Amino acid sequence: MQTDIRALLESGAARTDQALQRLLPSSDQVPVSIHRAMRHSVFAGGKRLRPILCMEAARMVAKDGAYPAGVEDLGSAIEMLHTYSLIHDDLPALDNDDLRRGKPTCHVVYGEAIAILAGDALQTLAYSVLGALRCPPQAAIRIVQLIAEATGTVDGMIGGQVLDLEGEHSQPTEASVLAIHRAKTGALIRVSLVSGGVFAGATQQQVAALTTFGSKAGLAFQIIDDVLDMTGDAASLGKTAGKDAASSKATWPAVHGVAASIADAQRLIDEAFTELTIFGECAEPLKAVARYLIERTN
Amino acid sequence: MQTDIRALLESGAARTDQALQRLLPSSDQVPVSIHRAMRHSVFAGGKRLRPILCMEAARMVAKDGAYPAGVEDLGSAIEMLHTYSLIHDDLPALDNDDLRRGKPTCHVVYGEAIAILAGDALQTLAYSVLGALRCPPQAAIRIVQLIAEATGTVDGMIGGQVLDLEGEHSQPTEASVLAIHRAKTGALIRVSLVSGGVFAGATQQQVAALTTFGSKAGLAFQIIDDVLDMTGDAASLGKTAGKDAASSKATWPAVHGVAASIADAQRLIDEAFTELTIFGECAEPLKAVARYLIERTN
Repeated sequence: MQTDIRALLESGAARTDQALQRLLPSSDQVPVSIHRAMRHSVFAGGKRLRPILCMEAARMVAKDGAYPAGVEDLGSAIEMLHTYSLIHDDLPALDNDDLRRGKPTCHVVYGEAIAILAGDALQTLAYSVLGALRCPPQAAIRIVQLIAEATGTVDGMIGGQVLDLEGEHSQPTEASVLAIHRAKTGALIRVSLVSGGVFAGATQQQVAALTTFGSKAGLAFQIIDDVLDMTGDAASLGKTAGKDAASSKATWPAVHGVAASIADAQRLIDEAFTELTIFGECAEPLKAVARYLIERTN
Repeated sequence: MQTDIRALLESGAARTDQALQRLLPSSDQVPVSIHRAMRHSVFAGGKRLRPILCMEAARMVAKDGAYPAGVEDLGSAIEMLHTYSLIHDDLPALDNDDLRRGKPTCHVVYGEAIAILAGDALQTLAYSVLGALRCPPQAAIRIVQLIAEATGTVDGMIGGQVLDLEGEHSQPTEASVLAIHRAKTGALIRVSLVSGGVFAGATQQQVAALTTFGSKAGLAFQIIDDVLDMTGDAASLGKTAGKDAASSKATWPAVHGVAASIADAQRLIDEAFTELTIFGECAEPLKAVARYLIERTN
């Protein structure tokens, strides 16, 4: 089975964007400032990789080749959480970034107060969407718990952000880089896959396979992200290249070098793929997405 | 049935504090800074009024005089959401408050970056707790949805905060004050009551009664809060008195005067009480709490 990866990524992004358009309050909804700020950041050109991973995991578990009805709402909720974390990361008190995906960041356009609240509101809206998911309530409440843990302070997204902030002025080590990646970006990628599986009714064995796959693949994607930050240019990345090095952020290539990092990412993906054996042929589209993510150049 | 209101409030606060101590990561949990910041603000002397309202609503619906097992976790999740909103409200980019409940605010002690993330994390942890509630999954997922809506941008807590920010430099009107109160503080108080009822298995009729009760009582409490801000002193309020007037914030007494405001609050509470008729004697403790809240002096 050959997967047309370009078509898959484009239709996955389009499906997500359509759901996000429906789920986000319109720009005319009072109070307009916050809804415009939320939309500004949500529709700033994200590639929707987490929703795509989520929807592909769900389709793989469903085993009939079709996406389970309503899974795009789950993917959209995850994208909202990702976007909220970016808005808050970019604030002057945190990373102080003016540019994200080639566009001015939320606080640059709407001011700090609205940017803080827009981030808050995207987190809130994500749970509103999870509260209305079209799956059995047992699955929905489990997804709420899994996602809240993956984005929390203990080995989750916020915890990773704190470790990253605190480590900015010390020499990164392999252990500190690994801890930051696992929590800051790895946990949300992992839960994108696992929650997609749970949405589609995954068994315990399937959830375990998705969890291990997600941990390894998530780390591989982050390593490639860091390599691209080091070797890429602002135009193709849509952000300031080399910024990590300038702020001596803990990254994998900073510790291991570029060539070894690329080899590590490849090895992690190979290991991750063995986890998907239980899904047989149905795993091909998800594998194609993962392969694309570590072979991309921007 | 006579309710010993002091004892009820004290034991409700103690029950909430115990649950919060259990649910919040300890001060030694890595990364320590964020967990200390979260605990700083959660244990800053709040009266736990929302959890108490939630637990009393649940007890009233349960009708056997006992609190349903685990309802204190729901109350604690609501208190976490309340605290996250206070931490973010107090930030320099928003209300810029250095003092809250007589203690230095989160960003004063831990810096802005950690305060932003601590607020984020309290919201996240609240949903983690809701994801693990000890009630049927149908009830739990409904509670997630109700709470997310009540704290969101459309007629919810964040929406009210935006209206409040935007209205700071214009003359408050009755309509603008009402819209802000309903959303900014009213929605969370209302959902404290409604979610407590849903947790205890409330019927549709009971949910409707709690919703109307919550709307009216919540507005009454906010009116009294604003009256106390206008007439109280910093020592007994634990915050800077008169601050609303100084910033020309939209408040009920600013529009209607103090005496009329107190009469309005009393009338709203009387109307609210008629909603509780269907609960008979079981409503007495909740009524006692509501009565206390509009008769308090700080």
